[in-house]
Amino acid sequence: MKNKHVVDLTDLSHRELMDIISLANEIKSKPGDYLDACKGKILATLFYEPSTRTQMSFQTAMLRLGGRIIGFDNPQNSSVAKGENLKDTISVIGGYADIIAIRHPSEGTAAAAAMYSPVPIINAGDGGHLHPTQTLTDVITLHNELGRLDNLCIGLCGDLKNGRTVHSLIKTMSTFRGNKFVLISTPELSVPQYIKDVINASECDYTEVTSLAEAMPQLDVLYMTRIQRERFLSEEEYQRQNGVFVLDKDKLRYAKKTMKILHPLPRVDEIDVEVDYDERAKYYIQTVYGMYGRMALILTMLKNYEKVFAPRVMSTHPFKCSNPRCITKSEKYLPSIFTEAGGDMLLCRYCDGRTLI
Amino acid sequence: MKNKHVVDLTDLSHRELMDIISLANEIKSKPGDYLDACKGKILATLFYEPSTRTQMSFQTAMLRLGGRIIGFDNPQNSSVAKGENLKDTISVIGGYADIIAIRHPSEGTAAAAAMYSPVPIINAGDGGHLHPTQTLTDVITLHNELGRLDNLCIGLCGDLKNGRTVHSLIKTMSTFRGNKFVLISTPELSVPQYIKDVINASECDYTEVTSLAEAMPQLDVLYMTRIQRERFLSEEEYQRQNGVFVLDKDKLRYAKKTMKILHPLPRVDEIDVEVDYDERAKYYIQTVYGMYGRMALILTMLKNYEKVFAPRVMSTHPFKCSNPRCITKSEKYLPSIFTEAGGDMLLCRYCDGRTLI
Amino acid sequence: MKNKHVVDLTDLSHRELMDIISLANEIKSKPGDYLDACKGKILATLFYEPSTRTQMSFQTAMLRLGGRIIGFDNPQNSSVAKGENLKDTISVIGGYADIIAIRHPSEGTAAAAAMYSPVPIINAGDGGHLHPTQTLTDVITLHNELGRLDNLCIGLCGDLKNGRTVHSLIKTMSTFRGNKFVLISTPELSVPQYIKDVINASECDYTEVTSLAEAMPQLDVLYMTRIQRERFLSEEEYQRQNGVFVLDKDKLRYAKKTMKILHPLPRVDEIDVEVDYDERAKYYIQTVYGMYGRMALILTMLKNYEKVFAPRVMSTHPFKCSNPRCITKSEKYLPSIFTEAGGDMLLCRYCDGRTLI
Repeated sequence: MKNKHVVDLTDLSHRELMDIISLANEIKSKPGDYLDACKGKILATLFYEPSTRTQMSFQTAMLRLGGRIIGFDNPQNSSVAKGENLKDTISVIGGYADIIAIRHPSEGTAAAAAMYSPVPIINAGDGGHLHPTQTLTDVITLHNELGRLDNLCIGLCGDLKNGRTVHSLIKTMSTFRGNKFVLISTPELSVPQYIKDVINASECDYTEVTSLAEAMPQLDVLYMTRIQRERFLSEEEYQRQNGVFVLDKDKLRYAKKTMKILHPLPRVDEIDVEVDYDERAKYYIQTVYGMYGRMALILTMLKNYEKVFAPRVMSTHPFKCSNPRCITKSEKYLPSIFTEAGGDMLLCRYCDGRTLI
Repeated sequence: MKNKHVVDLTDLSHRELMDIISLANEIKSKPGDYLDACKGKILATLFYEPSTRTQMSFQTAMLRLGGRIIGFDNPQNSSVAKGENLKDTISVIGGYADIIAIRHPSEGTAAAAAMYSPVPIINAGDGGHLHPTQTLTDVITLHNELGRLDNLCIGLCGDLKNGRTVHSLIKTMSTFRGNKFVLISTPELSVPQYIKDVINASECDYTEVTSLAEAMPQLDVLYMTRIQRERFLSEEEYQRQNGVFVLDKDKLRYAKKTMKILHPLPRVDEIDVEVDYDERAKYYIQTVYGMYGRMALILTMLKNYEKVFAPRVMSTHPFKCSNPRCITKSEKYLPSIFTEAGGDMLLCRYCDGRTLI
Repeated sequence: MKNKHVVDLTDLSHRELMDIISLANEIKSKPGDYLDACKGKILATLFYEPSTRTQMSFQTAMLRLGGRIIGFDNPQNSSVAKGENLKDTISVIGGYADIIAIRHPSEGTAAAAAMYSPVPIINAGDGGHLHPTQTLTDVITLHNELGRLDNLCIGLCGDLKNGRTVHSLIKTMSTFRGNKFVLISTPELSVPQYIKDVINASECDYTEVTSLAEAMPQLDVLYMTRIQRERFLSEEEYQRQNGVFVLDKDKLRYAKKTMKILHPLPRVDEIDVEVDYDERAKYYIQTVYGMYGRMALILTMLKNYEKVFAPRVMSTHPFKCSNPRCITKSEKYLPSIFTEAGGDMLLCRYCDGRTLI
C-alpha cells in the first residue's frame, strides 16, 4: 500500500482488505497496544456537507490511536465561502495534516483531491457515488459475525436504486465466490442495470423479489436500508408499500436463527424498535466494527506514506464529462481524464460517469 | 458508584458528593498527577441545543485528565436531522465513547438516555428541568470559599421562578442542616411552591423578601441570577423593577466583609462591572471550581463503570406523562414509567412531571 | 517575553522576532523533539467570526506541540448570544485555558481582551486592524526562502488600500534596513498615506506603479493579494483592471529566476492555477512556515507566563474613541485609554484610531 489513497474500496486488493480486517480485529482485542500508535499524527476531516456520524467515527478512530484531529463540518465557515478552490484547500490542509478524510456533495471529489494531496486521502462519501469506509464496515461485520465472506445468501432490502452503500457492498461481495444476492424492493427502487452487470460478470448470482417476508427464510444476512418517503411516486404509494418493507418481530419469525441483520444507520421506521432486542440485530455492533475498521485503515495508510510536495501536472482530454454532478463541473481547472470503456464510451476518472464521444 | 449515571445531583449520596469535592480539590492542588488519568478514554458531548460555555467546561475537564473529546453542538448537522431517535444515537455513540455528557431541550432526556446507554451519562441540562453539574459547581464553591455547607444564610436573587439552577441548589443545600434561604424576587418571579415544600420538609428554613438591599446584611452568600426582560409583564414593569435587583457597589456597602457573591454566568446587567473588583466577587473563580468538579465527576464515574451492551427491555405503564415538554412526547418508543406520588398522582420517571390518574 | 501578549507583531522586539524564527526552524527540523512540549496545556481559539483556515492553523500548531484545544467558531452558539460581555468571556475562558487566540470583527478587541485575560492573548485578527501571525508567517517565509530580511525589493500587488496583511508586512519589513517596496495597484486601491509615512520615517524606500508586468523584473519577492470585486467602482472597471493584476505564466517571463511569489491565501483568480507548477510559487509552503511560526510563538509565550487572577482596575480618559469600528463602541465598560499623538490628536490604545480633541 505504498502512497495509496482510498477513493473506492476496490483500491484495495483482496489481500490488503483481509490484512485490514485482521488488523481491525487485532486492535479490537488489544486496544491498549495502540494507544500511541499515531502519536504526533493529525487527521483532517474535511466535511463539505455535514455528516456528524461519519465524521465522529473517523475522529474516534484517530483519537483511539493517539492521534489528533482538525477539520470542519460546514463549508460556510471555511475559505471555500471566499471562493477558494479544492486544490488550494487540499494543498494547504495537506501541509497541516498527515492524512485527510473528505466528504463532498459532488461525485468524484475524493479522486480529484487525491491528485493534488501531499498526504493520503480517504473518501468519506462523494455525493451518491462512493463511501468505501461504510462498505469496509459492512464487510468486517459480515466476516466477524458469519465467519466467512463467500457462499453467503445476502438479502438487500429498501431503496436499492439510490443507495450507494448497497451498490458498493454488492460490488465488493461479488469479488468473493458463491455469494447469492436477494434484491428486495419495489420495481421503481430496484438495483440499476450496471450493478446487475457486475454480478453477472462475477462468480455470484442474484434474484429480485418484492416481498421481504417471502425472501426471509433463505437469508444468511439481511441488509436493511432507509427508504426516503420522497422516492415514492405518491403519498398513497408510500403508505401502501411502506409496511411491506418494514422489518418487525412478525416477519422475523420466518428467518433463520443465525441470520444477521445489518443497517448502515441512521434508520427511521424501516426496522421496528422491538427488533433491537433480538439477538440477530447487529446494526449497533456494526458501528463499533466500523470504528475498528477505520482505525486499521488509517494506521495502514499512514505507515506506508511519505509526504510529497511536488504538484503533479496532468494532461487534459479534449472531451468533458457529461455527468452534471461531477466535481469537474465546479472545479474548472481539473484536467479531463477518461479511460475508454469500449465502443464510443468514455469513463470519467473522477466520478465514473459515462460520456459518449 | 458502580455503573451510575448522574441525571440529578441527588443521584449522589452525601458521602459520594463529599468524595467528589475532595477529589476536585486534590486535582486542583496537584494537576500534574492527573495529566494521564483518562488516557485512552473518550468523552462525547452531545449538545442538542448549543451551550458553548457548558460544553467547553466539560471538554476542558476531560482534556486536562488526558482524555479525548468528540461530539456535536448543533442537531441540524447530525443524524438527528435525518430522523434518528435518541436511542439509536445513544447506542452508537456509546460504542464510540467511554462517557457521554448530554444536553437537550426536552425534560427527561438524560434519564431516557441513561436507560439505553452502554456507558455512563452525565446530564448537562435537560430543558428547564435539571443541570446537576452547575449545582456541583455551586456546592464546591460554597464549600471552598466558606469552609462548610451547613448553617449558612444563603440569599438567592433574581428569577427564582424559572431558574433551574436556583431550584437545584436549594434542593441540594436543604439536605444539609441549619441553612436559611433568603428568597429575593418580585412576587411574579418567586420560588414555586414545590421548592418551598422541599425546604419545609428539611431541617432548613426560608424567608421571602422583595428588596436586595434590605436582605443584604444577614447573608453569608448572595447567589445572583439573570432576569430575562421578557419575564416581566411589561417594559415599564421591567424598568421599574430592574434597578431593585441589580447588585452594585452601593448595595454591597450593607453586606458582610466575608460574604461571597456567586452567579452561574453568563450575566447581563444584574451585577455591575465595578463589583468584579470587589474581593467578595467569586463568580469567575466559581467557573474554575466547576472545571475541577467536572474532572472529579468524570474520573469517578469512569473508574466505576464497565461497558454493557445488552439492551434493557422495559415494561410500559398504561398512562402517558402529561408534561408537554417531556422527552416521551417526541420519542414515542419510550416506555411510560412512573412512581406513585401519593393520592391519584403519578411522577414521571423521566421529567419528574406530575400526572393525575 | 515575561507575561507578554501579542496584539501586534511590533509587540516583539527584533531580537524576540529573530528568536521565534530560529525556534520555528528548529521545530521544523526536529518535530519529534517537540511532541510533548505543551503536554497538559490548552489553547482556546475564540473566533467571533468564522475563519476556518486561521483557526485550523492555530489548532494544528498546538496539537503538534502535544497541547489540547477548545474554542468556538460561531458567536451564535456561545454565551455571547445571551448578552455576555468580552470581559466575562475572557475571564472565564482564561480560567479554563492556558493561552487564547482571539479573532473578532471589531478593531481593538485583542488589546481589550489582553487587559482582562489571566493568560496570554494572541491576536488572530481584529477587524481590518491587525493580524500579526499572518505577518509572522510572511516574515518567516521571506527569511527562509531568501536568506535575509534586509535589502530586498518587495512587490506588493492588489488591494493595497484595504489589505491589513499588506500594511502589517510593510510596517514590519521597514524596520529592516534597505528594503524597497514596489506598490502595484490602481490609484483607487493604493496604500494609505499613514503607511507611506511609516516607510518615509524608516531606512527604506518605495515607488508606486500601476502595471504588474512593468514592475516584475526588479522584484526579489512578489506578494499578491486578493482584490474583491466590490472594491471597484463598477463592473466595467473591474473587468478592465482585473487582467492587469492577474499573475500568469506570461507575466512571469519577466521575473527573476530567483523571485519568490507569496500570497496570504485564500486566492480567487489573481494567480492563475498554472503558476502553481512554477518553482517560484511559495504560497503553499508559506502556510507550512506559518504553522511552525505559530508553534514557536505559542511555545515561547507559554514558557514566559504565569496565570494572574487579580483583575486590573484602569482609569478612564474623558474623551471617547471616534472610530465606529472600535471595540469600545460595543463594550461600554472599557475605559477610554489614549496616547497623545502630537498636536490635538489622541491615539486609541485599542484600535490605534485617531481622535481629535
